[in-house]
Amino acid sequence: MGGTDQVQGDRRSPAAANGGDTRDRNAVINLDHGDPTMYESFWRNLGDECTFVIKGYESLSYFSNPKNPCWFLEPSLEESIKSLHGAVGNAVTDGYSIVVGTGSSQLFQAVLYALTSHDQRNQINVVSAAPYYSSYAEITDLVRSELYKWAGDAHEFDKDEPYIELVTSPNNPSGVIRGAVVNHDGGILVHDLAYYWPQYTPITSSLEFDIMLFTASKCTGHAGSRIGWALVKDKDVAKKMTKFLEVSTIGVSKESQLRVAKILQVVADRCKRFGSPQGHNFFEFGKSLLAKRWEILRETVKKAQMFTLPKYPLQHCNYTGDVTQAHPAFAWIKCKEGIKDCEKLLRNHKILTRGGRKFGSDPGFARVSMIGREEEFKMFIERLSVIQMFNNGDGNENRNLD
Amino acid sequence: MGGTDQVQGDRRSPAAANGGDTRDRNAVINLDHGDPTMYESFWRNLGDECTFVIKGYESLSYFSNPKNPCWFLEPSLEESIKSLHGAVGNAVTDGYSIVVGTGSSQLFQAVLYALTSHDQRNQINVVSAAPYYSSYAEITDLVRSELYKWAGDAHEFDKDEPYIELVTSPNNPSGVIRGAVVNHDGGILVHDLAYYWPQYTPITSSLEFDIMLFTASKCTGHAGSRIGWALVKDKDVAKKMTKFLEVSTIGVSKESQLRVAKILQVVADRCKRFGSPQGHNFFEFGKSLLAKRWEILRETVKKAQMFTLPKYPLQHCNYTGDVTQAHPAFAWIKCKEGIKDCEKLLRNHKILTRGGRKFGSDPGFARVSMIGREEEFKMFIERLSVIQMFNNGDGNENRNLD
Repeated sequence: MGGTDQVQGDRRSPAAANGGDTRDRNAVINLDHGDPTMYESFWRNLGDECTFVIKGYESLSYFSNPKNPCWFLEPSLEESIKSLHGAVGNAVTDGYSIVVGTGSSQLFQAVLYALTSHDQRNQINVVSAAPYYSSYAEITDLVRSELYKWAGDAHEFDKDEPYIELVTSPNNPSGVIRGAVVNHDGGILVHDLAYYWPQYTPITSSLEFDIMLFTASKCTGHAGSRIGWALVKDKDVAKKMTKFLEVSTIGVSKESQLRVAKILQVVADRCKRFGSPQGHNFFEFGKSLLAKRWEILRETVKKAQMFTLPKYPLQHCNYTGDVTQAHPAFAWIKCKEGIKDCEKLLRNHKILTRGGRKFGSDPGFARVSMIGREEEFKMFIERLSVIQMFNNGDGNENRNLD
Repeated sequence: MGGTDQVQGDRRSPAAANGGDTRDRNAVINLDHGDPTMYESFWRNLGDECTFVIKGYESLSYFSNPKNPCWFLEPSLEESIKSLHGAVGNAVTDGYSIVVGTGSSQLFQAVLYALTSHDQRNQINVVSAAPYYSSYAEITDLVRSELYKWAGDAHEFDKDEPYIELVTSPNNPSGVIRGAVVNHDGGILVHDLAYYWPQYTPITSSLEFDIMLFTASKCTGHAGSRIGWALVKDKDVAKKMTKFLEVSTIGVSKESQLRVAKILQVVADRCKRFGSPQGHNFFEFGKSLLAKRWEILRETVKKAQMFTLPKYPLQHCNYTGDVTQAHPAFAWIKCKEGIKDCEKLLRNHKILTRGGRKFGSDPGFARVSMIGREEEFKMFIERLSVIQMFNNGDGNENRNLD
């Protein structure tokens, strides 16, 4: 899921939520959320091609397409989604129903509703392999549904009961490509593919799982639009998901759908020009910037040997035609041994991140957003260098640790 | 709640959802939903004043206003909401927190979450006086929460248990002004004021209840935008509502918020010119069109004495300065005695409405939308005349009734 990055607790209060004023050298930098503001510069350079205009009398109705079982899905968004997946080659859309949601968080809830029944006796277990996206548990148990419950790390799930396994690939927070881990009878898989786009990871095949979730937030960076979509093989599941969205919010913002439709179509049309001198290919921009950031981060981390970063295999990307490694949206940083709380260490240097425990993992890890604004990333690297300098000195840094 | 009008079951399937092709004299007319397309002509006449433009690089971030506890609320929407309530005089905003939602349906769920606790032993009862808005029950019990449950008609609630009472005023479906009916200790009131606007009912005071829900869908007719707002007296309740919206959809579409902000501001600015020759006052347009439709409907109904309609008292409207009666968004039609199923009777004449049973009431009633397009309303009146003609003849109409 893309929209994973909720304001949780006072420390991550909105006052520090948006990166603060990075002109202030002492400002708190917030890399806790995966706010995809990195992409602003690309869209700014594109000029008016993606400007969206809607007149006062347009889209008043609740309805978008009475002929579609998902009656609130704008036809132009449906077309753009198909067009983009076709151009990128990351997911099959033929034979799938498309369900639009207010971000993929809402679609996840729609899936839980669709895969359970008011007639069932016991709650269905919802699991995901640790480290798992930190909001899955909170979303699942938000109103304590009698239909489903969060059952934690999929690696530890050994009950002989029905379950739903969320497979996040590439994974949030760790960036690795994953498959199902439980593999019992009676399990249903939901694939959260928010980050399966060429800027983050090599596209190795066009996926065709039963239920696949995507979001504009992490695809094009338009998080404020709150548009997610599900590709769903079973028509009845798609219908039941639609029912959930109908009851919970009577559909999805038309303005957002129409704007995102336009943006996805521009991205799809430009996909055909990868590597061409005229540039302006969205994924080329994203991949190039993330590759540069990852290179800088790896160099900084290497110097002092205070942190470690995951390594990603070289793979052939069907989209770019290159052999390349992943450049995930988050750095899943591990502190060296002896430092118990990575999040706290970074917080002491005014870098807000999300600690490993929230992902069902070890607090020696922290997740750091790599998709914020350039100034924030630069300040992050500067401060990381300072932490490492201290550490290479008298080791006083450890005074601040649990 | 404004967004009450969900596609339920196959009969109301999307194929017949949008009024169909009203050029076909045999077309099904769908007056089941309260799709506010009546307002299209007003907004069309306004020209470009309400055209909304957003560039490709704008509003990428999840965040709108880090200084506001409701961090995803666009400041311009907050301003417009205050400005409009001030201009109309229907609700107090000073001292209230504003929480924005994906329609008021989502805000209702946020309220249920905010007023209950994960620590409580038993589910809180949710009640509303019949006839109540048909979706309250479905929304409340959507995922079978352990926190709350639908407990039906407030008139029949006599348990000595905590409860939440929804007070819908003017009421959907019946259009009458209502107050709380339970009045036990331990009850909390939620006021759904979707229709408390001058086109529907005289504005007799500026309300200041603890929790008040509004929606753009029924205020300006922009149902497709999915924008609702809550005025909340208790800051902690507003915070907990915000938390619900954060977890369930990570906020609300920025495009919709910004567009609705513009539209509400235009309406507010024009409020000052009520009755002026230059026209273009939104509420004047709405009230005048609804008054005309109600007059035609009352005349048609009167001729044959086959149906009855509610009567509304004459009251002084502080907004218009006139003494006037209500012209509700729905006609709550009652068949004369002997006809048991009003919805079925009308359906046999290809008029889709919503039967009384769905509102916790008698099937002799049906709710008919008065806010659809002009062609639909005209066809409705024509068909109603035909039903009455038949009835005044040999009474064969009853063959089709339960």
